[in-house]
Amino acid sequence: MAPQVFFISDGTAITAEVFGHAVLSQFPMEFEQVTIPFVETIKKAEAVQRQIDDCFITTGLQPLVFHSIVKPEIREIISNSKGADYDFLNTFVAPLEDQLGIKATPKVHRTHSKENASYESRIDAINYSLDNDDGQTLKHMDKADIILLGVSRCGKTPSSLYLSMQFGIKAANYPFVEDDMDNLKLPEKLKQNKDKLFGLTIDPQRLHEIRQSRMQNSRYSSLRQCRVEVKEVEMMFKKERIPFINTTNHSVEEIATKILYTTGLERHMF
Amino acid sequence: MAPQVFFISDGTAITAEVFGHAVLSQFPMEFEQVTIPFVETIKKAEAVQRQIDDCFITTGLQPLVFHSIVKPEIREIISNSKGADYDFLNTFVAPLEDQLGIKATPKVHRTHSKENASYESRIDAINYSLDNDDGQTLKHMDKADIILLGVSRCGKTPSSLYLSMQFGIKAANYPFVEDDMDNLKLPEKLKQNKDKLFGLTIDPQRLHEIRQSRMQNSRYSSLRQCRVEVKEVEMMFKKERIPFINTTNHSVEEIATKILYTTGLERHMF
Repeated sequence: MAPQVFFISDGTAITAEVFGHAVLSQFPMEFEQVTIPFVETIKKAEAVQRQIDDCFITTGLQPLVFHSIVKPEIREIISNSKGADYDFLNTFVAPLEDQLGIKATPKVHRTHSKENASYESRIDAINYSLDNDDGQTLKHMDKADIILLGVSRCGKTPSSLYLSMQFGIKAANYPFVEDDMDNLKLPEKLKQNKDKLFGLTIDPQRLHEIRQSRMQNSRYSSLRQCRVEVKEVEMMFKKERIPFINTTNHSVEEIATKILYTTGLERHMF
Repeated sequence: MAPQVFFISDGTAITAEVFGHAVLSQFPMEFEQVTIPFVETIKKAEAVQRQIDDCFITTGLQPLVFHSIVKPEIREIISNSKGADYDFLNTFVAPLEDQLGIKATPKVHRTHSKENASYESRIDAINYSLDNDDGQTLKHMDKADIILLGVSRCGKTPSSLYLSMQFGIKAANYPFVEDDMDNLKLPEKLKQNKDKLFGLTIDPQRLHEIRQSRMQNSRYSSLRQCRVEVKEVEMMFKKERIPFINTTNHSVEEIATKILYTTGLERHMF
């Protein structure tokens, strides 16, 4: 039976989840995972404690309890459950107090909240990326932090959205389509923003599969067409000295992080 | 002087960053933060080690080194730097090995990578949310996991995108606009999907400010119009018994998490 894991927090529980997931992924086994956010009152905490204890009794297997809880009185109740307790936050906060010679001043919702001063600039970045997705308009390219280029379905849109959502970066994107291929060149507006250009490419076979699932047996999705487009666009990236990466085996997180790393763009944090 | 913090990983460093940010946010002070992802070779690790040591020499202040490194040989080099070492991953992996009675099998890029079996369904969810943003079409509502409703600029779009990006949820959204207000009702297609409807509302004053920054001194952005729209839409939510939350003081993370929590929709993890 797969061990039961609880991710618990008095906030969104996103930190507990993301971090806990990274820890668990090091083990070659399956886990049953439950996330319980917003445990903000003693009453709720006691109900969660009972839920953990009941789980132990019912399954006979000690559940793992991963938590990131700011309020001490809530943390104490959860830690008193019969689960195996892993206190993500305090494990590092206590030694950091010694290192920094300063006491922590626990405050709920300090991460992942609107109190972050740059929150509005992040929403602006998301709106920018949406409004400048897929070459809808080239009018606002001067305001972009980065402009992603590539053939249709190579990963431009999810990557731009991730860059804006996670890092507050204004990411536009521009597609090269079939009609461009005979005489492929950069539009004037993109040339004027050449230092912001970043290319994405993809293996033609994988592109073919992705396009097939959208428009089966079309010219657009044919392996032949995918090969032509990828070859032409890669040649242009090289000729114009536009940095580019192959997205075939990479997630949006990896693509976005590699773009930041290559370009030196600053990450904002929320 | 603000202490220097390094977030280091042999992967994207997103885990180190998100978690480190949560830990640091408990301290009432500023930090200088640098993220170094993809430290995958001995040579790179040694360069980073020198960078940390140089930072100590130059500033006279011991830098904090937060890392989430899977490869032991890389981890050892970073841990040997003169920084104050906080090993996010191993601190929990070692005790978990005892608890689970199984050895960890360290593997880089297991989180935030395409190896996750549900990666494609996440990309599908992102595309779904984009294609069904802002009531562009009601054709695909039957396929939605959730449909967010509300007035223009109350937070529907960033929330839908976050739900799809972070949790792999197909989130559509539908706006109620000025012309709807005289006789506000749910379109037939939304009625047919009533169990998926979730409302967002916002304080009229805040809505007025947001709209003003987009379209100054228009009827659309007037406080009067904002008040009318919010009032009408909230009345409809109540009449139709659609659950809703006020987004005014909440971040996209908080809104998305509250929606999941209220509806019981399952989070997917990537």
